[in-house]
Amino acid sequence: MVKNESMKRRVLEEAVRVASQSGLEGVTIGALAGSLGVSKGGLFAHFGSKEALGVEILQASVSGFEHQVFRPAVRARRGLGRLRALLGLWLGWLEGDEQRPGGCVLFAAASELDDQPGPQRDFLEASQRRLLASLTQLFQGAIDAGEIDPGADPEGLAFHLYSIALGFHVTRRLLRHERASELAHAAFERLVVSASLPRAGGAPV
Amino acid sequence: MVKNESMKRRVLEEAVRVASQSGLEGVTIGALAGSLGVSKGGLFAHFGSKEALGVEILQASVSGFEHQVFRPAVRARRGLGRLRALLGLWLGWLEGDEQRPGGCVLFAAASELDDQPGPQRDFLEASQRRLLASLTQLFQGAIDAGEIDPGADPEGLAFHLYSIALGFHVTRRLLRHERASELAHAAFERLVVSASLPRAGGAPV
Repeated sequence: MVKNESMKRRVLEEAVRVASQSGLEGVTIGALAGSLGVSKGGLFAHFGSKEALGVEILQASVSGFEHQVFRPAVRARRGLGRLRALLGLWLGWLEGDEQRPGGCVLFAAASELDDQPGPQRDFLEASQRRLLASLTQLFQGAIDAGEIDPGADPEGLAFHLYSIALGFHVTRRLLRHERASELAHAAFERLVVSASLPRAGGAPV
Repeated sequence: MVKNESMKRRVLEEAVRVASQSGLEGVTIGALAGSLGVSKGGLFAHFGSKEALGVEILQASVSGFEHQVFRPAVRARRGLGRLRALLGLWLGWLEGDEQRPGGCVLFAAASELDDQPGPQRDFLEASQRRLLASLTQLFQGAIDAGEIDPGADPEGLAFHLYSIALGFHVTRRLLRHERASELAHAAFERLVVSASLPRAGGAPV
């Protein structure tokens, strides 16, 4: 039986580990119960359904991202330095670790859930919208700090950085490209160079 | 019974349709047989195994990409115009259509397969490496045409464009962002602006 919060945390950690490699679909309550030596009934008592467990896996991943990537990054001074710190931490997060040997559950779930309406998709969409909004704020901070041209589109730059992280995710994990990290950092610097130029009367890029 | 090539094509089209929405894992020979009104034995006779069918789904997706995106794009004159044509066609491809209501099977499979060794992963990795190599050649063409600084790293630019396409895939399909296409085109123009600048003695970006 799953009786307490520490046990629930253990189950969730194992579920995140499985989801990072096999996707949310690969997490089954039966297999989790087996590998942890607990009853399926106990797991259902805590999580209610596979779908509710999926939302908790996504929530745990968002919390992990906040603790390991976002909060440490925003300790750096506002502006491009903060964004560079964020990118470095983000790439480390995407590499994965013992808790998430398959890398970022959120990016992996993006394609898995995009055509599957329901609470998991709703949660993931909302979390990634919040992330884009936070990145937009960081770029606005770099504009306010005078490091990026005031005519630049901070949401466009946020999309651009988000894309680079996705590119690293696939290039590193699927292609096992040795230069993936270097390519991602170089792409970011390209973004910075372009965004630092004053717009010559055209539409902001 | 699946008796001929046209029937095999019909099965594969249905399999691609399902995979675009539910991933390769979501394609089951039993469900395919049911929805097409053919026997499971007939399907196995043609595809051998679920994994072999998966490789054929990926192969069909690569062929579709070549026909709908790559070949039409390379009809444009060498250089940035060709790359802009490619991006426009690629975004259309990622939006999906009747045959692929869930969008690009290849991008969707990238996260699904990255931790699953086997012929499906091998095929997908090889196809995406070839795509990156082709994009690198297109950027080299833009360098040769004098539109991009000769100090730029064409493979880095290929990674960058690939990232923008991935960013569009998630931003459009998961986030349903209304500006996804505009943001992707703007990111590409940012890349072009930066890559067109002569390198001031620093490392190529």
